[in-house]
Amino acid sequence: MDMQQAQIGLIGLGTMGSALALNIAEKGFPIAVYNRTTQVTRDFHQEAGDLAGNVVPTESLEEFVNAIATPRAIILMVPAGTPVDQQIEALEPLLSPEDLVIDAGNADFHDTNRRANTGYKMQFLGMGVSGGEEGARHGPSIMGGGRQADWDRVSDVLNAIAAKAEDGTPCATRMGEEGAGHFVKAVHNGIEYADMQMIAEIYGVMRDGMGLSAAQIGDTFATWNEGPLQSYLVEISGKVAKATDPHGGKPMLDVILDKAGQKGTGRWTAIEAQHLAAPIPVIEAAVMARNVSARLEERRVMQDRFGAAPQGFDIDSTVLEKAMIAGKILCYAQGFTMISAASEKFGWSLPLPEIARVWRAGCIIRSSMLNDMAEALTEDAERNLILAPFFANLIEENIPALRQAVAEGIAKGHPMPALASGLNWFDMMRTARGTANMIQGQRDFFGMHGFERLDGIADAHGPWGA
Amino acid sequence: MDMQQAQIGLIGLGTMGSALALNIAEKGFPIAVYNRTTQVTRDFHQEAGDLAGNVVPTESLEEFVNAIATPRAIILMVPAGTPVDQQIEALEPLLSPEDLVIDAGNADFHDTNRRANTGYKMQFLGMGVSGGEEGARHGPSIMGGGRQADWDRVSDVLNAIAAKAEDGTPCATRMGEEGAGHFVKAVHNGIEYADMQMIAEIYGVMRDGMGLSAAQIGDTFATWNEGPLQSYLVEISGKVAKATDPHGGKPMLDVILDKAGQKGTGRWTAIEAQHLAAPIPVIEAAVMARNVSARLEERRVMQDRFGAAPQGFDIDSTVLEKAMIAGKILCYAQGFTMISAASEKFGWSLPLPEIARVWRAGCIIRSSMLNDMAEALTEDAERNLILAPFFANLIEENIPALRQAVAEGIAKGHPMPALASGLNWFDMMRTARGTANMIQGQRDFFGMHGFERLDGIADAHGPWGA
Repeated sequence: MDMQQAQIGLIGLGTMGSALALNIAEKGFPIAVYNRTTQVTRDFHQEAGDLAGNVVPTESLEEFVNAIATPRAIILMVPAGTPVDQQIEALEPLLSPEDLVIDAGNADFHDTNRRANTGYKMQFLGMGVSGGEEGARHGPSIMGGGRQADWDRVSDVLNAIAAKAEDGTPCATRMGEEGAGHFVKAVHNGIEYADMQMIAEIYGVMRDGMGLSAAQIGDTFATWNEGPLQSYLVEISGKVAKATDPHGGKPMLDVILDKAGQKGTGRWTAIEAQHLAAPIPVIEAAVMARNVSARLEERRVMQDRFGAAPQGFDIDSTVLEKAMIAGKILCYAQGFTMISAASEKFGWSLPLPEIARVWRAGCIIRSSMLNDMAEALTEDAERNLILAPFFANLIEENIPALRQAVAEGIAKGHPMPALASGLNWFDMMRTARGTANMIQGQRDFFGMHGFERLDGIADAHGPWGA
Repeated sequence: MDMQQAQIGLIGLGTMGSALALNIAEKGFPIAVYNRTTQVTRDFHQEAGDLAGNVVPTESLEEFVNAIATPRAIILMVPAGTPVDQQIEALEPLLSPEDLVIDAGNADFHDTNRRANTGYKMQFLGMGVSGGEEGARHGPSIMGGGRQADWDRVSDVLNAIAAKAEDGTPCATRMGEEGAGHFVKAVHNGIEYADMQMIAEIYGVMRDGMGLSAAQIGDTFATWNEGPLQSYLVEISGKVAKATDPHGGKPMLDVILDKAGQKGTGRWTAIEAQHLAAPIPVIEAAVMARNVSARLEERRVMQDRFGAAPQGFDIDSTVLEKAMIAGKILCYAQGFTMISAASEKFGWSLPLPEIARVWRAGCIIRSSMLNDMAEALTEDAERNLILAPFFANLIEENIPALRQAVAEGIAKGHPMPALASGLNWFDMMRTARGTANMIQGQRDFFGMHGFERLDGIADAHGPWGA
């Protein structure tokens, strides 16, 4: 290809960057690519096969910039943090004010806020890309943040490469100004942790409480994937549970160490929820569970001392399915509440129905229930999700099962921290007269912190005496 | 008094500063005081009564500094954050390298770490002071951080003003370098949130589930305060529950709005635990509950739609007492685990038994159980608290009651998020073979994140196929 012919550029040919670049090339957009290590760029071009004709490999930043038609659009897919700042700094002298840099990495949205307000010579967008390598290659969910005009300039490319929902809508949406896109991606990641943890909890009671085999559990998940719980995570959990170890024929699940890794994205969400004073206990429980899983040796010692729970968890699997339906709805209600809190704090006017829509395909938490959530949020985005008639009815129908399952787990000693946290949150939220009056009494007693009164009388302190 | 006679100085005569200055003066240490607003200093001196002779009021920073015997020790009790930095900046030119500045405010320990490493001309200590106004005046719990030599220089004053445990030990301890003291204070505050929330949950089931009056509940707390739960917070909860509103004769609890305030200290602890990957679900649930309490209007709408839980919580109050004993032990075990994690991360060698000891008097979470915790941690500070024989036995004895109470709350719809979180944590910790293998399977399926195997075979991926 000749110079100046690329319609867009991409820097950073790691797993995600390569996949995204091939996706773009495949959709017919000539793309210039650059990687710090030149050999990586050459290998990428060579391995691009049929798509190589749409790829312009470049070996210096200058060559890269010159290969892109002006005004330029350049996607960065480099490690989050300092590398992004370094890449921007290196690019800035080579760019014009009309050019656009898009950070498509896994940025902390606070960094995106900062960059959006730095006043670079060129324009800047932040863009959360979900769906892993597979999504990036064949259709990710894309959550953008920045100026509308900048988004509009690249939306044809983004709509082309994004996943398509069942109704054909591309899962690529501008969420608002600044770091809005990376923020929505962070909440996505928190919900991902929670969905995974709830599945793991149900797996746990079926394995340890009911004595089911991995294959039996896999069949159950596969069945649930045909019903209201239809989702990518339930689907792959069924496949994971049914897979057989090529090294010895046991179920894969039975040879995998029970120590969960994390890149810290769930932790970010939990921390941000604290700053927003937004209650997301299901997500918090999921992060907590990963931290507990890392303490393998301590758990062995504890089991030696206290014993693990015996079988005897006595619940029909249809009750477990209903419990998960309720737990999932409660978790998403918390996630959307957190989004509302951020929308207010940062002045972003985040479009809740569009967020539900953009998660319907391409990303890890995609599920059929997100269609219904998008509809419920379209009716009224201000209302708590579980107050939408469709979900209020589902909650009424399925909460008894969640209650039964969690109570049985508590009674018999099988932990379900995320599901229990969802239920406790629900029971707090439906109690108009809570118990924080006791806490206010204590705080006033020991620290003269004062309180409000139900009757509006302006005496903020109790008669506690000396 | 003549110039140069004060043995120590204090800047900031707000509620806490005034109380601490009077405490110091009362213990026989002449103290120079300074406040930005001179009238505050004059009023303080005038109202010091019998103690005025030990107080040197000063009206400029220069006068203040000159009034203190060299090498000087100066306590700052100004609002946390920028005001502390500004005060240090103003003082620095007036001080000598041997002088010592002590930040006794409610600093974020990260700020104390930063200040400890700033390289001021003079020396610097960070000091967490717990116990509110009453504690500061008559005996707080003091958690220090900084160099041993600096601590030793002021330990006579600190030991004199600190609360004394039953065995006479002053509750003033240097916890380690840098922000170690303010960090331990932060964990104290998180545990304070959790203790308060567990009491509020038990209050809730007694009120809403069992239909007991505030006075009856107060009697129950008063009784419990004679047993293993003896603690300042249970004691004052009994008094709060039994207090009568002077404006109309109803129980005080029944006129206080159920919307808890917070200064954010519990939130800091929850955030730091995330950075440390330390599971503290009981504290997290307590912070969450305060956030939920703030959503009054939303809770009213939810109750209209879903109804609040009816009475019918069927548990004997002795079971509730045992449940609280178990919940409290689990919460503290989590708190000490968080301290261990920080000790390792920051290289502080935090003295766990001394931390339990320093909390025995003067601070909000003081309780008789801390004596036993200090002993258990003295036996072995590396071991999880609930593995110490004394507490392992208590856990075995009381977990069934916690299980019974939480299961009943879950079944009947009365929320006990903190107590439930403690129990779920326990059930996870005593399960050597957890369920994170499912999470690792999922992560490898969608993101090729890899996993470890139980059999040590080095194949980190599953046979998931295309």
